[in-house]
Amino acid sequence: MPTYRAPTKDMNFIINEVLNIGKYSNLPVFSEATPDLIAAILEEGAKICENELAPLNHSGDQEGCTRHDDSSVTTPKGFKEAYQKFTEGGWGSLTDDPKYGGQGLPHVIGFAMEEMMVSANMAFAMYPGLSAGARAAITIDGTDEQKQTYLPKMISGEWTGTMNLTEAHCGTDLGMLRTKAEPNDDGSYAITGSKIFISAGEHDLADNIIHLVLARLPDAPKGVKGISLFIVPKFLVNDDGSLGERNAVLCGSIEEKMGIHANSTCVLNYDGAKGFLIGEPHKGLRSMFIMMNAARLGVAVQGYGQSEVAYQNAVDYAKDRIQGRSLSGPKAPDKAADPIIVHPDVRRNLLNAKSFNEGARAAAFWCAMLVDLSHGSESEKQREWADDIVGLLTPVMKGVFTDRGFEYAASSQQVYGGHGYIQEWGMEQFVRDARITQIYEGANGIQALDLVGRKLPANGGRAVQRFFKHVMTIVADCKTNEKLADFTGPLEKASADLQTATMWLMQNAMQNPDNAGAASTPYMHLFGHVLIGLQWLEMAKTSVEKLEEGSDDATFYENKLATGRYYMKRRLPETKALLAEIEAGSADVMALDAANF
Amino acid sequence: MPTYRAPTKDMNFIINEVLNIGKYSNLPVFSEATPDLIAAILEEGAKICENELAPLNHSGDQEGCTRHDDSSVTTPKGFKEAYQKFTEGGWGSLTDDPKYGGQGLPHVIGFAMEEMMVSANMAFAMYPGLSAGARAAITIDGTDEQKQTYLPKMISGEWTGTMNLTEAHCGTDLGMLRTKAEPNDDGSYAITGSKIFISAGEHDLADNIIHLVLARLPDAPKGVKGISLFIVPKFLVNDDGSLGERNAVLCGSIEEKMGIHANSTCVLNYDGAKGFLIGEPHKGLRSMFIMMNAARLGVAVQGYGQSEVAYQNAVDYAKDRIQGRSLSGPKAPDKAADPIIVHPDVRRNLLNAKSFNEGARAAAFWCAMLVDLSHGSESEKQREWADDIVGLLTPVMKGVFTDRGFEYAASSQQVYGGHGYIQEWGMEQFVRDARITQIYEGANGIQALDLVGRKLPANGGRAVQRFFKHVMTIVADCKTNEKLADFTGPLEKASADLQTATMWLMQNAMQNPDNAGAASTPYMHLFGHVLIGLQWLEMAKTSVEKLEEGSDDATFYENKLATGRYYMKRRLPETKALLAEIEAGSADVMALDAANF
Repeated sequence: MPTYRAPTKDMNFIINEVLNIGKYSNLPVFSEATPDLIAAILEEGAKICENELAPLNHSGDQEGCTRHDDSSVTTPKGFKEAYQKFTEGGWGSLTDDPKYGGQGLPHVIGFAMEEMMVSANMAFAMYPGLSAGARAAITIDGTDEQKQTYLPKMISGEWTGTMNLTEAHCGTDLGMLRTKAEPNDDGSYAITGSKIFISAGEHDLADNIIHLVLARLPDAPKGVKGISLFIVPKFLVNDDGSLGERNAVLCGSIEEKMGIHANSTCVLNYDGAKGFLIGEPHKGLRSMFIMMNAARLGVAVQGYGQSEVAYQNAVDYAKDRIQGRSLSGPKAPDKAADPIIVHPDVRRNLLNAKSFNEGARAAAFWCAMLVDLSHGSESEKQREWADDIVGLLTPVMKGVFTDRGFEYAASSQQVYGGHGYIQEWGMEQFVRDARITQIYEGANGIQALDLVGRKLPANGGRAVQRFFKHVMTIVADCKTNEKLADFTGPLEKASADLQTATMWLMQNAMQNPDNAGAASTPYMHLFGHVLIGLQWLEMAKTSVEKLEEGSDDATFYENKLATGRYYMKRRLPETKALLAEIEAGSADVMALDAANF
Repeated sequence: MPTYRAPTKDMNFIINEVLNIGKYSNLPVFSEATPDLIAAILEEGAKICENELAPLNHSGDQEGCTRHDDSSVTTPKGFKEAYQKFTEGGWGSLTDDPKYGGQGLPHVIGFAMEEMMVSANMAFAMYPGLSAGARAAITIDGTDEQKQTYLPKMISGEWTGTMNLTEAHCGTDLGMLRTKAEPNDDGSYAITGSKIFISAGEHDLADNIIHLVLARLPDAPKGVKGISLFIVPKFLVNDDGSLGERNAVLCGSIEEKMGIHANSTCVLNYDGAKGFLIGEPHKGLRSMFIMMNAARLGVAVQGYGQSEVAYQNAVDYAKDRIQGRSLSGPKAPDKAADPIIVHPDVRRNLLNAKSFNEGARAAAFWCAMLVDLSHGSESEKQREWADDIVGLLTPVMKGVFTDRGFEYAASSQQVYGGHGYIQEWGMEQFVRDARITQIYEGANGIQALDLVGRKLPANGGRAVQRFFKHVMTIVADCKTNEKLADFTGPLEKASADLQTATMWLMQNAMQNPDNAGAASTPYMHLFGHVLIGLQWLEMAKTSVEKLEEGSDDATFYENKLATGRYYMKRRLPETKALLAEIEAGSADVMALDAANF
């Protein structure tokens, strides 16, 4: 059975040494987040993830969720008790607004907790995870009354939330959605329609579930400009805040899926359910994107979080399993064979995952810091800058971190040989669970299109220009230190490939939009390499400084440098192949008639 | 529910037009295989695969196999009837020796049938597939009596066979195996031990199961030089060929796996079971490799076969599912949205799979032809040449075709969006089933080591030199035709990368074997690209010729050229990144102490 050890040391390293969030302690959100407090929170968070959530991961997968005849859903054994501990510890409210009972901590702490939860038990983590997306929409678009009514109990975890977008005939193309919202006399709306793939749509963990539902008003324009967002509580809420009538939203079935069996993926049938408009009529797509962008960053964390836990177990197995001898002579001559971690190809497997996981974590945490700066910085320019970078990197991280997360969950499974294919060893679950991250909250092809079609051209390319400038400033700064030459050289090359690709897109996508479409996924992955390469340069810079200061934890920093060098030398040159694919253009992609595939 | 259409047209194209096996009609094995006969066989084979096997794939996955208290195993509903039709039609004996009831047809026809079976129902295909591996060992190493006793009924399909290598503590490193073989007075041996991961180890499809079992004789030297191979029938066979006593080999349990649920993966417990030595004492590893090499080629076919069926269903879905509009303007203005096959990124996904599947099929069929030439050619030099190439390409095809097969099964699933994650749509099964192909019959890391450690240096590098010469001869021949410039140019570059990598290995692996280990997997994939690129050049050459001849099936050949161009321009440049990874050497791979992973 797999185990999980929260990488809190690595997290503290990124937060305090690489990002050095202490330098923003003048801002309210960072003011209390001292290294000691952060370490204490991560330590406690690690305990609940390691001791309460991880042990339920495999059993939850085996048991799955059960829907009963009355449309209620039971989560697997132990989930209800674990959720109770989770909410009692305040683990779901770390970054929420203190005005509604949140703890107002920096998002970087929220991301760290999210990662630990996902690694420990992704299906469990999705229950509070979806709730956070729903809260984001209410926080930004809700009226004061709506905030007062829903946020405190959603933040405390007494209630959870969901996001209801997809219908059977439309997922990506929400313009086609059919769910209706008809005005009631009391100012509320009667919601009628059927939504599918609703994660955490019905369950027994919380007293109430607040569904956020996209639907059309009677006078709605066609397409995406006619979509509105509604709050539809499972139980209506009385004026005194107590629970009232059961609303007409029922779970029609739960899906039998490839993975995340312990999360209930529901068909929700709305039969004139009472709903409340949130935000302006017909502007639901904007609110939806608020939820969605929060959710996409969360899914990016799921991507590398699954890779991380799969990697950890692969390392344990590779140290334990003896098979064959090292090519350079026996390393464990007292044993019948050497542990397989002596074999270069096993190490290659592990280092692919390790160098990605650590780079992805650094990128995600950087982005989390920028989320706070985009809201809380005193400088308008910095707020805008941070918002630009977060917007630009959100599709990159969602798409790349989940593609790689799935790949490295599978390559970690590979380390187990045949045992990796057997359910009881638990490795195959990581692969099945990781697979959904490439699909939901916008399939990765959609992330790539969002990147090249929206994020790149926005504001005349301001975000990507700022990103390039940021990379080049750091490279220029680090080039003076020859100890960083293994990092600055490859990053400069990769960054040049990304700039060439960006220029190619500018020159070729306007005249033929298919060129953008055909380039989008390789471009996203090229971007991902530069993003992770940048993190490695930053981590290397910090590590070299610490070593020069004579740190008494030299091994830690030397290992960082070794892991980073692996990424820079062996992974980053992939940018060359990706650039070639982009520059090949769309002609060969569009050549075949549909009938001839 | 997925469907399957056997690509018989493509198969006939490769066999008759690209390989033109008719040119070998002077050799016995090819003498009867006229284009008409081949077409007729493929057409009939397609029917059983499409109509009998494919409909049982999803239900077989859902139901799985059941072990009963008496250690017997029941296969899923319909399997027994389908197996009956399969054997009655003679589909399991296409390429076997007519002396023992086989049909003596070329291996290329066997490979084609294997591919169709695998695409239709991989778990089913494994029952006769494993049997073929077992027959190969008996055919080559068995005594006349053993051949007479076992082959006719194994070839007819009345009995099946298995391969028993792995034990709980050893898979790759067979030198550690513990199963004992103690001499009985009658010249037989008492086999005692426990074997795991035995595919098709116990089932209800056939009257008897002939287990081929690796075990140690009492006087066996340590390690792999002390392993012998034994025939252990489930039911002992009387002198008159009738079934006798039940042997002491029982299925202890069946594994709960990630996929191939309809194939029984057994723990087999041997408790003094009566076995018969096959081949020489202590030379079992050699016999094992006979089985294994046949099996590895079969697994290579499984790899692209799973990709093929997943691709076909992704194409159907992409033509059917409407979502969003083409970037270059509506393509189905009468509908609410365009079919998603208009989107370049969806096409990229499909073309990655299509261009791989067709190239892999051509490579596999080429190799199948060489298997026959290696046995049947009148020229000793050609026999040796063919044997060299098959030996060299076996690990490449096993490793690369299964890595890519899994990747493209998953990317085909991706085309379905959320529906791809739901079991009833059937796409996720292809991913789970494909996953095992990277693991069994030698995990892909072992294939890569076999390639760089054994196949490259064998006979002073004769095989790889022959391969390069073959590539360069064809390139030189085709360079005179400017219509092939899109193919010869990229293949020349990729082939140069492979030669550089080979040279690098020669120069750097001797001084430090870890350099070979660290390079092995990227080298295998670099080799795979050149192999598939070569197939595309050959297919393009044939297509150009057919078009110049004024073929009335011009669309078919134009599509071949378009698909091939996609591979050459967008996939093949990956060789640059792989070469960079190889040339990065092993220092960064070996840098971390095991404790610091």
